[in-house]
Amino acid sequence: MTGTTRPTSRTRSWWGWGWMDAHPDDAECTAMGALLPGTLDRPLPVPGIRDLGIGAPAVGVPWTLGHLVSADPADRAAHAMGKAYRDVVRALHGRPGRIPDLVARPVTDRDVADLLDWAGGRQVAVVPYGGGSSVTGGIEYRGDAHRAVLSLDLTAMDRVLEVDTAGRAARIQAGTLGPSLEDQLRPHGLTLRHFPQSFEFSTLGGWLATRAGGHYATGRTHIDDFVQSMTVVTPAGTSTSWRLPASGAGPSPDRLFLGSEGALGVITEAWVRLQERPRHKASAAVAFTDFDAALRAVRALAQSDLSPANCRLLDGGEAALSGASHDGSAVLVLGFESADEPVAARLERAVGLARGYGGRLGGSGATDGEDRSGDGAVGAWRSAFLRMPYLRDGLVRMGAVAETFETAATWDRIPALITDIRTEVGAAALKATGHAATVNCRLTHVYPDGAAPYFTVLAAGRPGDGAALWDDLKAVANEVLHRHRATITHHHAVGRDHRPGYDRQRPEPFALALRAVKSALDPYGILNPGVLVD
Amino acid sequence: MTGTTRPTSRTRSWWGWGWMDAHPDDAECTAMGALLPGTLDRPLPVPGIRDLGIGAPAVGVPWTLGHLVSADPADRAAHAMGKAYRDVVRALHGRPGRIPDLVARPVTDRDVADLLDWAGGRQVAVVPYGGGSSVTGGIEYRGDAHRAVLSLDLTAMDRVLEVDTAGRAARIQAGTLGPSLEDQLRPHGLTLRHFPQSFEFSTLGGWLATRAGGHYATGRTHIDDFVQSMTVVTPAGTSTSWRLPASGAGPSPDRLFLGSEGALGVITEAWVRLQERPRHKASAAVAFTDFDAALRAVRALAQSDLSPANCRLLDGGEAALSGASHDGSAVLVLGFESADEPVAARLERAVGLARGYGGRLGGSGATDGEDRSGDGAVGAWRSAFLRMPYLRDGLVRMGAVAETFETAATWDRIPALITDIRTEVGAAALKATGHAATVNCRLTHVYPDGAAPYFTVLAAGRPGDGAALWDDLKAVANEVLHRHRATITHHHAVGRDHRPGYDRQRPEPFALALRAVKSALDPYGILNPGVLVD
Repeated sequence: MTGTTRPTSRTRSWWGWGWMDAHPDDAECTAMGALLPGTLDRPLPVPGIRDLGIGAPAVGVPWTLGHLVSADPADRAAHAMGKAYRDVVRALHGRPGRIPDLVARPVTDRDVADLLDWAGGRQVAVVPYGGGSSVTGGIEYRGDAHRAVLSLDLTAMDRVLEVDTAGRAARIQAGTLGPSLEDQLRPHGLTLRHFPQSFEFSTLGGWLATRAGGHYATGRTHIDDFVQSMTVVTPAGTSTSWRLPASGAGPSPDRLFLGSEGALGVITEAWVRLQERPRHKASAAVAFTDFDAALRAVRALAQSDLSPANCRLLDGGEAALSGASHDGSAVLVLGFESADEPVAARLERAVGLARGYGGRLGGSGATDGEDRSGDGAVGAWRSAFLRMPYLRDGLVRMGAVAETFETAATWDRIPALITDIRTEVGAAALKATGHAATVNCRLTHVYPDGAAPYFTVLAAGRPGDGAALWDDLKAVANEVLHRHRATITHHHAVGRDHRPGYDRQRPEPFALALRAVKSALDPYGILNPGVLVD
Repeated sequence: MTGTTRPTSRTRSWWGWGWMDAHPDDAECTAMGALLPGTLDRPLPVPGIRDLGIGAPAVGVPWTLGHLVSADPADRAAHAMGKAYRDVVRALHGRPGRIPDLVARPVTDRDVADLLDWAGGRQVAVVPYGGGSSVTGGIEYRGDAHRAVLSLDLTAMDRVLEVDTAGRAARIQAGTLGPSLEDQLRPHGLTLRHFPQSFEFSTLGGWLATRAGGHYATGRTHIDDFVQSMTVVTPAGTSTSWRLPASGAGPSPDRLFLGSEGALGVITEAWVRLQERPRHKASAAVAFTDFDAALRAVRALAQSDLSPANCRLLDGGEAALSGASHDGSAVLVLGFESADEPVAARLERAVGLARGYGGRLGGSGATDGEDRSGDGAVGAWRSAFLRMPYLRDGLVRMGAVAETFETAATWDRIPALITDIRTEVGAAALKATGHAATVNCRLTHVYPDGAAPYFTVLAAGRPGDGAALWDDLKAVANEVLHRHRATITHHHAVGRDHRPGYDRQRPEPFALALRAVKSALDPYGILNPGVLVD
C-alpha cells in the first residue's frame, strides 16, 4: 500500500457544488444576477438541513454491519442527490430527492458483498456513490418500489494499492478522489492525467461507472481506454478481469461494466494505465471570426498526426463568458504536452494549420514544468473552467436557469446540430420567460470523425416553478439531439435524467441484452434502480 | 453504392490456406520436410472432395429461401472448417469436421433475418462464415444437438455502401474481403489499413466478430477501435447502433457484439473509421544479440511518443526462419508512416533509442508511395509473413506439426512467459517425438503496458495420430499462459479450440451475463453453438 489520503478540514456543500467556503456570497450572487435580465433581486436563502425534516431511517442494519453505516441526517442529506442544476434548485427549495435511509462506507470488497447480501434479502435499494458529482440524477433514488434506500459511499476505499512502475500501471481503489489519486501516484513519477471538470469531487469508480471524459481533447480520452482490469462486486459474485494490455477473447468483460452506472455491480478497484508526468508543454489560443471556419480547422487538426492534448473550441459567447475573447471571436485553446521531447514544433504546426482557416494567434506559452496554469486567453479559460460550477450555483440562487449539457456527433452533423440547439433552445427560453437566453457552445473533445459539443444555457427563470423550465428546455434540446442522431451524452452519463433519450437511442436488441444481464447479476433489482434499465 | 468486387478466376483451396495454385508442390513439400528431422519421406496426398463421402443434406429450405442456398458438396466441404493446423490435418486425413448441410449466401439483412427465422423453428444450427480463415475452430459445427447445420456465408454482401470523405468513414457490408474493401475505398483516397495476415481471405465482419488485430503494431490496432456503428441481425431483432465518434451513454452496444463470434447475432454491416493513405514511410531493421535487451528496447519504444506503425520483434529463431537474420540475432522491424509529414526523423529517434539497448542498424528504407515492400531484413520479413501459411500447409503434408498461437500479457510477465513457453512446449515435443522442436517467438503488437507474443511451433509429427500431438502441446502452452495470466488469445479469437482456456480466464459473473445475453438474443440456441457460451 502506498501513499495516504490528503487530509482536509474544509466542508463539502450539501446543496451545491464543491466546498462550502468556495460558494459566492450573497453580494456576489446579487452582482451576477444583475448581469442576467429577469432574475431575482436577491439570492434565494440556503435552507438548513434541519429544515428538510429528515425522519428516522426506515430500516436498520444488523450489528455485524453497524460499523459501516451512518444514519446521521447531514450525511444522509449530502447523499440525496448529485450536482445538476435541477438538484441545486430542488435543494434550495427544500425539496431534495428522496433522502437515503442510511449511508454505508465499506472498506473492503467483502464489506460491499455483505451489504449487497443484506440489501438483497430486504428489498433495500443500493445507490453506489463516489464523489457525488453526478449531473444526470445518477445517485439518487426515485420511486417507492423499495423498502429503504442505502447510499453506498465508496470513499473509504481510497488507496493506490500497487504501482507497476516499469509497466506504468496501478491498482487503485474505486473510492479514490482525483486529487488523492494523483497525490499517491506522484512519488512514483507517474500520473493518470484524467482531469474532468469534476476532478476534485469525483472518484476513479465514478469515472469508470459513467465512462467519464478526461483531460485529453484528442485520442484516448474516455477513462475506458485506460482500464487494464476491473473488480466489480455484484449480488451474483465478484468479477475480476485479468490485467491485460489487450485481449481478443470474446466481448470485453470490462466494457460491459464501463458505463453500467452502478446498475450491474459495484466497481471496487481497477488497474489503470498511467503515464510519465509531462516535462514539455506548450499552449496557444487562436481566434476566429468565422465559427464554421473554426470548426473546419478543428476537424483538420483532429485528422492530423499532431494529437494536441488540448483542442477546445469556444464559440464567441463561451469565449466572452470565460474572458478568452471580448469581440465575439471564437477561440481555439490548443495545448501540447510530452514526457519525451519538446512540443513547440507541434504547436507551431498546429497554429499554422489553424491560420490556414483564418485563425489569428492570441496568447501562447510554453512550460517545461508541471504548471497547469497558462497566460492570456488560455489561462482565462482554465480558471473559468474550474470556477464555473460555483458560479452556476450562484446564478441558481438568483433564480436563473444555468445548466450545461453535452453530446457527440459525426462531423457531417456538427454545424447544423450546433445551430439548431442555439436556435431552438434560445427560442423556447425566450417564449417561456420573455427574456433572451444565452446558449453557448464549446467543443470539449474532438475526433477524426466527429466532435463533442458542450452547451451552456443561461436564462431568466420562471419564479416558483423549480426545475420545470429547465426540464422543458432540455426536452427541446433532446429532440434536436435525436433528430441529428447525436448521443444523449458524451461523458455525463445517462443517470435518470437522460433515460428517455437513452431509451430512444439504444438499439432494442441491446436493451434486451442489458435487461437480461441485469436480471442475471442483480436478481433482486436492488442496484441503483432506475438508471439504464428497469 | 460505390465500386465493385474485384473478379478472380483463381480457386480457393478447400483443405488448406488460400489459393489452390499457391500451394507448394510435392517437390517443394519434400524439400521443406527434409529440413525438419522426423518428418515423412514424401507428402501426404490431398484427398478429393469425392473421397469425403458427403451425403445429402439433412434438411431443405422452402422455395422462398431456395435462391440463397447451395447444397453442392464442394461448396459444403469448403465451409466445413477453418484453416488451423488441426483443420488441415483433418482434411488431409479425409476426416474433416461436420460437413454443413447447406451453404447460404444472403444478400440483404432481410435475407439473414429470414434464414435465422427458418433455422430457429427447425433446430438448424447457423454458423456465420466470412473469409473462412478461422484458426480456432470458429466456423465449424461440433456435436449433434441440432437437426442440421447451415453455413451462413456473408461474402455476397461485399460492397462499400457509403463513404463520408470529410468525416473519413465508410459504411461497409460485413462480407467484404480485405482486398475488395481497399479497392473500393481507393478511389476516395481513403484506407482502413487493417492488414491482418489473413487479409486476402478474411472479411470485415469476420474481423469484427473476432476482434481482429491489424496493421498497426502500436496504438489502436484492434478493429474494435475503428468501429463507429454496427448492424447485427439477431433472432430477437436487428440491432443498429448510432454512428458516433464517441459516446458515454451506458455500456457500449458495439462492444458487446465485438468479439461475439457469431454467437449473439450476425454482423451484416458497419460504419468504420478510415484514414488518408500514407504518403511518407520509413522502415528499418535493428538487430540485437541480447533478446531481453531487445524486449526492454521495445517497451521503451511503446512507452514513447513515437508511435511506430510497425514494431515487430523477431527472436533469433523467427528472424532466421524469415531470412531477417542469420546469426541468431533478434531483429526488430520498425516502420513509420504518415499522410501528414515526413517520418524519417521519427525513425531516426526510434533507431537511436534502440541503439541505447544494444541494437545494431540493419536494413532501412524510406518511401513516399504506397509500396508495401521493403528491402533487406524488412523486405524478407514481409515476404515470409504473407507466404507463411502456405509453407505451413506444405509442412503439414510432410507429417510435421506446424502451428502458431498468440497471447498478450503485461510487461512484468513477458520475459518469463516467453521463456516458459519455449522451454515447456519444447520439452513436451521432444518427449513425444524424440526430436528437438522449434519454438520461436515474435512480438506482433506492443503497448505501453505490455505486448502480444506470437509463437511458432515446428515439430516432427507422430505418424497416424492426426492432430492429437498438437492438442497435447497446446494444452502445455495453455497451462503456461494461465499460470502467467496471459490471455488465451490476443487476436485469433476463442472459437471452439480455445474454449477451455477462455472459460478459466473469464470472470464467472461475466459468464453469467454472457449466458443471459445469449438466451435473450438467441432463444433457440442456433447461433454458432459451442463458441463462447453453451
